Amino acid sequence: MSRVTVKRKVLKENDRIAGELRTGFRSRNVLTLNLISSPGSGKTSLLEQSLRRFPQGMRTAVLTGDIETDNDAKRLAPFGFPVKQITTGGACHLDARMVERGLTTLGTQDIDVLFIENVGNLVCPASFDLGEACKIVVLSVTEGEDKPLKYPATFVRADLVILNKIDLLPYVSFDISQARENAKRIHPGIDILEVSCTTGQGIDEWVRWVQKRLEMIRKADAR
Amino acid sequence: MSRVTVKRKVLKENDRIAGELRTGFRSRNVLTLNLISSPGSGKTSLLEQSLRRFPQGMRTAVLTGDIETDNDAKRLAPFGFPVKQITTGGACHLDARMVERGLTTLGTQDIDVLFIENVGNLVCPASFDLGEACKIVVLSVTEGEDKPLKYPATFVRADLVILNKIDLLPYVSFDISQARENAKRIHPGIDILEVSCTTGQGIDEWVRWVQKRLEMIRKADAR
Repeated sequence: MSRVTVKRKVLKENDRIAGELRTGFRSRNVLTLNLISSPGSGKTSLLEQSLRRFPQGMRTAVLTGDIETDNDAKRLAPFGFPVKQITTGGACHLDARMVERGLTTLGTQDIDVLFIENVGNLVCPASFDLGEACKIVVLSVTEGEDKPLKYPATFVRADLVILNKIDLLPYVSFDISQARENAKRIHPGIDILEVSCTTGQGIDEWVRWVQKRLEMIRKADAR
Repeated sequence: MSRVTVKRKVLKENDRIAGELRTGFRSRNVLTLNLISSPGSGKTSLLEQSLRRFPQGMRTAVLTGDIETDNDAKRLAPFGFPVKQITTGGACHLDARMVERGLTTLGTQDIDVLFIENVGNLVCPASFDLGEACKIVVLSVTEGEDKPLKYPATFVRADLVILNKIDLLPYVSFDISQARENAKRIHPGIDILEVSCTTGQGIDEWVRWVQKRLEMIRKADAR
């Protein structure tokens, strides 16, 4: 069996499990968001801000993936929401099977929003469906405005790009309108939010984006 | 054939080609350096600084890898050194075969230092030997000091970590001594340099590091 055939088979099996996960999330009205970014773009910081600011009554849980360490789960635990670390032990992305296993201990009973924080990698995670409602790509302004053009497969599959660390804009040469244009060139329908997890700027808008998505899946379900 | 068997076979074939490349580089006294980092950590900026500052007479060439676009080759072309873009078309890393093909047009005649700028990805490139003398990992201070612990396979294989963007230290919460400690914990023998490609700080030391490595391979060859 060739390398391509094996990869196709792996992705097909992944899609099957992801399909089952998606059906389960939908039947329980859980909004599942798959966060993808380079290492250190601020996924965990965004979750810290989110868990702090989400309105009372919005029940949230987190599956957080890393190759090694449970640092992120430790950072997120103090907020009192269910958090489960998935350590991939070498794999450069989460796959649907890992999410399925993570959910056996985390559960999705009484959850409104499930965040899946993927392994820090702007390439490989985009190929693996996790049964999520949306992929969200976090791009920090220190990384350069050309990233949508260099990593198109990730941006074309995402519903939202969060331009993070905008508090650093005065100190880096990042052309934010060019970044927006590049993201729209790859995916014209993509939403774009500008955020700083350090100052809190833009976080309210992000929380509203999540709430709106939650309403959308509930309305779709009520039809 | 299972996924693991195929991966093993792919890596074995890669190692074979990388071995041939290494023999070729050694026989021609070419110092080959494989630069690995997250997207946007500053590999291309480091090369811009290097090509600008390398002493007269140090003959340099660059193979630069990206999934899409030839932006990096365009950025590096004005320095007048041979530059060849490798577009992987989806693959998340360079492999030895791509380097071999890149060299057929670039050539290694009359070259002292060959830089290979890998695809922006802190995970997968570490598994693929490119026949280089050293792997160098670039970590920007905006990414967080925990990265050596989260991506150990990359740091354990690198001879040098370049802590880049140190001009941003006043604006981010990055503990540089903790970053050094984490890198040394994963790989006690690793060299560490602090650099800013924006201000030029630390670039002279980096140039000396490269010159020293070049002398080392030449002395080893003369024995």
